[in-house]
Amino acid sequence: MSVYLHDIPLADAQKRLQQALKEAGLWKILGMEEIPLDEKAVGRVTAEPVWAKISSPHYHASAMDGFALRAEKTVGAMPTAPVTLEIGPQAQYVDTGDPLPDWANAVVPIENVEALNFDANPADDSRHPDLIRIRAALTPWSHVRPMGEDIVATQLVLPAGQILRPVDLGAAAASGHTHLRVSRKPRVAILPTGTELVPVGTSVKRGDIIEYNSIVLGAQARSWGAEVERYPISIDDFALIRSRVQAAADGHDLVLLNAGSSAGSEDFSSRVVEELGTLLVHGVAVRPGHPVILGLIRRSDGSGVTPIIGAPGYPVSAALTGEIFVEPLLAVWQGRQPFHPEEVTAALTRKITSPAGDDDYVRMVVGKVGDRLLAAPLSRGAGVITSLVKADGISILPRGVQGLEPGTPVKVRLYRPSHELEQTIFAIGSHDMTLDIVAQFLAERQRRLISANVGSQGGLVALRRGEAHLAGSHLLDPQTGEYNLPYLKQYLPDTPVEVVTWVGREQGLLTLRGNPKGIKGLADLARPDVRFVNRQRGAGTRVLLDYHLGRLGISPADVQGYDQEEYTHLAVAAAVASGRADCGLAVTASAQALDLDFIPLFQERYDLIIPCKYLEGDLLAPLFELMTDASFRKAVAALPGYDLSQMGKIVQACSE
Amino acid sequence: MSVYLHDIPLADAQKRLQQALKEAGLWKILGMEEIPLDEKAVGRVTAEPVWAKISSPHYHASAMDGFALRAEKTVGAMPTAPVTLEIGPQAQYVDTGDPLPDWANAVVPIENVEALNFDANPADDSRHPDLIRIRAALTPWSHVRPMGEDIVATQLVLPAGQILRPVDLGAAAASGHTHLRVSRKPRVAILPTGTELVPVGTSVKRGDIIEYNSIVLGAQARSWGAEVERYPISIDDFALIRSRVQAAADGHDLVLLNAGSSAGSEDFSSRVVEELGTLLVHGVAVRPGHPVILGLIRRSDGSGVTPIIGAPGYPVSAALTGEIFVEPLLAVWQGRQPFHPEEVTAALTRKITSPAGDDDYVRMVVGKVGDRLLAAPLSRGAGVITSLVKADGISILPRGVQGLEPGTPVKVRLYRPSHELEQTIFAIGSHDMTLDIVAQFLAERQRRLISANVGSQGGLVALRRGEAHLAGSHLLDPQTGEYNLPYLKQYLPDTPVEVVTWVGREQGLLTLRGNPKGIKGLADLARPDVRFVNRQRGAGTRVLLDYHLGRLGISPADVQGYDQEEYTHLAVAAAVASGRADCGLAVTASAQALDLDFIPLFQERYDLIIPCKYLEGDLLAPLFELMTDASFRKAVAALPGYDLSQMGKIVQACSE
Repeated sequence: MSVYLHDIPLADAQKRLQQALKEAGLWKILGMEEIPLDEKAVGRVTAEPVWAKISSPHYHASAMDGFALRAEKTVGAMPTAPVTLEIGPQAQYVDTGDPLPDWANAVVPIENVEALNFDANPADDSRHPDLIRIRAALTPWSHVRPMGEDIVATQLVLPAGQILRPVDLGAAAASGHTHLRVSRKPRVAILPTGTELVPVGTSVKRGDIIEYNSIVLGAQARSWGAEVERYPISIDDFALIRSRVQAAADGHDLVLLNAGSSAGSEDFSSRVVEELGTLLVHGVAVRPGHPVILGLIRRSDGSGVTPIIGAPGYPVSAALTGEIFVEPLLAVWQGRQPFHPEEVTAALTRKITSPAGDDDYVRMVVGKVGDRLLAAPLSRGAGVITSLVKADGISILPRGVQGLEPGTPVKVRLYRPSHELEQTIFAIGSHDMTLDIVAQFLAERQRRLISANVGSQGGLVALRRGEAHLAGSHLLDPQTGEYNLPYLKQYLPDTPVEVVTWVGREQGLLTLRGNPKGIKGLADLARPDVRFVNRQRGAGTRVLLDYHLGRLGISPADVQGYDQEEYTHLAVAAAVASGRADCGLAVTASAQALDLDFIPLFQERYDLIIPCKYLEGDLLAPLFELMTDASFRKAVAALPGYDLSQMGKIVQACSE
Repeated sequence: MSVYLHDIPLADAQKRLQQALKEAGLWKILGMEEIPLDEKAVGRVTAEPVWAKISSPHYHASAMDGFALRAEKTVGAMPTAPVTLEIGPQAQYVDTGDPLPDWANAVVPIENVEALNFDANPADDSRHPDLIRIRAALTPWSHVRPMGEDIVATQLVLPAGQILRPVDLGAAAASGHTHLRVSRKPRVAILPTGTELVPVGTSVKRGDIIEYNSIVLGAQARSWGAEVERYPISIDDFALIRSRVQAAADGHDLVLLNAGSSAGSEDFSSRVVEELGTLLVHGVAVRPGHPVILGLIRRSDGSGVTPIIGAPGYPVSAALTGEIFVEPLLAVWQGRQPFHPEEVTAALTRKITSPAGDDDYVRMVVGKVGDRLLAAPLSRGAGVITSLVKADGISILPRGVQGLEPGTPVKVRLYRPSHELEQTIFAIGSHDMTLDIVAQFLAERQRRLISANVGSQGGLVALRRGEAHLAGSHLLDPQTGEYNLPYLKQYLPDTPVEVVTWVGREQGLLTLRGNPKGIKGLADLARPDVRFVNRQRGAGTRVLLDYHLGRLGISPADVQGYDQEEYTHLAVAAAVASGRADCGLAVTASAQALDLDFIPLFQERYDLIIPCKYLEGDLLAPLFELMTDASFRKAVAALPGYDLSQMGKIVQACSE
């Protein structure tokens, strides 16, 4: 059973809106305006073709500094047999760009001219005309830019629907235009609603939701060519929302109504649309997104209707609603083509499931590992705005697809140019706090670090599958006390790898400030009043925990919260900070990050495992440079509990 | 001998500027400013990493509308064995986004709940507590968005140097930011100089050059993130230019001085720089571009120096100077990466020559014909701004390369995404006035028509070489009176093609209004007082001319101007309109376009020749649709002298 009883397929929803707007005469360019031809015209869209009013050049122009002359007079000129011409009747000085005299048909560049008696008798130049000597014949029209060389009057300079670029402005000016007729900017009103919302800048308390969807939607609409007005947050007051929607519809071309995330807000939205106009669609079978509302609002002055799009409250849903419904509409209104993202096919790195009834928009990180293009799905949560920040693109799993296995080729609509994907370094494995710093420093070196935190063992598995360039690992072997190397034999028997020490780091228990439960060590995890938060299976920290619990004779069943798994040190810290657990095992820096107490327990080594084949080429070179970069090392050393003395030490080398 | 005695290689020039700016402390981010987090922040560049101030969610939030409860209480719930919970102590209603009560650890969605006795005894709810029934067990934390699900406080949200996108603003807001620290916008002054220049909007007379370089440079700098101030045109007055340069340098971060195209203006520029500061570079061995000036101007207040870039007067040179010198500098000042254009390798369609001493920037049209990516060089003229408008990218022929043969693979730095290149239709062959209209209509249908005018025979040769999708041809066979088909046997013996009639059109002689020389027909071309302008060898119009001259017994040697070749009908018309020739042979529409008289002589058939293999796929489909499109036919019919009755008729079909 679903609360969104009216969900219709995405394509139907788009058609319904388009049909309604066609009937209302609103599925076309909104109108045109004339703007001056200056640098602010960039990005505007031509509303009609630009035909040349004049030619460019609009006269025969000299292409060089030199003398205009008749080419016939230079016939026979040779190094050994110069031709002499009289300045005035036979040769006239011209600068580049000067019009050619009517009688001339060529220009000899000044550097190919020998000047004779220029100063012979300045007082009496009627008797001693100035002369020039030329030692090479010229063909007619040489060094002349004939009229129309660039543009011939009446020719097409720019088509309608062109998004104006700097050089387009030059061509329009050269062809005699002083103004350009462009489509007027659509006016978009954005109305955030929801009693639980607070504006950016408010000091938040539990239950407050920072309202930023209106900023994202506004920024989208603006970057797609619209003028945007953002309204203040409306509380869930039906009359208030109704009156604001009416006012917005009266003064804009499009109303974007953004519900709070609660179902109550959303219900208000649909009722408002029903009362003020026509509800076309309530619920679209797209994930994330579901409760999208499409409708038309009657204008108060009877002049027609204004479309309204109700975007869901979850930020990913709201942003995708913008991409799916708003951008194509703004394109039509501006008379330009909608954006056609580049599409690539990449191999899925892990299994994904999908509801069969929905078009499912999966955010993907895309990168090249070896010669394979890989698509790694990001968090699916509709509330996870960072999944859109990190995404290289979107895969749409169409209705009817219930899931895909790893390795399946999927199409990804890219947010960034595909050639930038080759600068992406995939690091899959154990999470470490230094990775954020690495990401920042690599960004300055034209590399993008994508780190997926699946634990040390997960990273080794990813390397075996060819899904990452490197893995961070801190796996202690209980038998030997050795780090990582014994596991490589097990997980990567056939993959030659280099092992480079990254950092030494301290692991210990995190507790709230003041350590209210008086926890001293792992033995306390067996206490019935202590709630623990664990790392996921395969994490090096989990291996460490299990090793020491075993030595202490504590069974997992004795540890309350042993099954509560988090994927990063920071997530463990957050669980402790929030009071969801009393303690967790993590690195020092995570305690400091969230202002927790730290009970140091173990020192461990965190290595980078890099398949030898990725050491060739220059993708990873900046990473190795960082290991000896003073400012990078300084930034890492500022995190507590890190030992950099072994950074860059090669534990296992690739054979020559 | 060259006037640019000081030309230095491009890389040296860039290094010299960079070194001087480093010494002046100007090769880094100019400064930062704090801006409010709103939609206007899009496109700005983060000046420092954005770290999360708070987590998102910043509390454990319900992910659904439903009841918060303890998961343990639902153990054992099954369809046949429901569990009943008391609202209040055991279950609390929550909307999506509401904080979870401290005692709860899961949420059951409202649609999975059966409400009991909600209205049992409204008057006495102390005795009849409301109850809910659940028929499935819940795991802890199900339907809860734990604190930090999206963002954990202290984590990296955005790196420094990020060009802000709409979703980035959302993530920054979600992590507790109200303002963002971004690099301040570089301030760029643009000074056009040259006595021959007139501003856009002036009614031009012979010798006037419309000044639009400042608009192109301004639009470039603005779209690269700068604030731009354009100065009025300075005439070539040394004192005036000097004082304006000083004022501009005092109030801006960068001065762009654009010389008129005359050598005089350019000399002023370098002298001004020498007087007011340091001339670093005068002349760069790059084509087009040569007289680039790089220097530093001392600020009046002694506060340091301001770099100055002197861009040459030719529009292509000026625009490329922007790309080569201005964009990378603005990138450094904003703390972002310079733009890295996508680069593709394509096969050159025709021979190009290049000066050995220069880095030669060749504008290219790039498209895919069959499975080959082709690069067709555009006009090389530094004055041809339309070559930049049409260009898909730039090939740089490095110093030392003197020329390349057709078929040579060349690298092209693209101006548009490579996936759009596959929407390009290459039409090489005879020029026709309808092609501009086709280009406009195809642009609305997501196709770009690139027509290269090399004449009918040149088009057939291009088809044979696999360099075009189609060729327009109107080749009369003198023996048979048949159009095109006999030539196909000669030029394309092994390439199966479809021949589709495009238009019938009238050819005749163009003269000035009033036909001052009293020209009546081709016989007049033999008159000594009549100057003719011809089409190039291989043009159908040239074949037609030769055929009829032969019938009239007129030898080419008898025709004055027979060797004056133009490549299009419009260019012929322009030659006549300018007075360079008294008449030329062309289609009716070209006469009307330039307000000339037209003496009709012949009717001819203009066909499209399309290799059968390109009929598959959907690239050409919109072209065929146009042939029956009413508004397109209307637009073509508005041109004089065209007969559309046979449009779309298949003269020779591809065999099944």
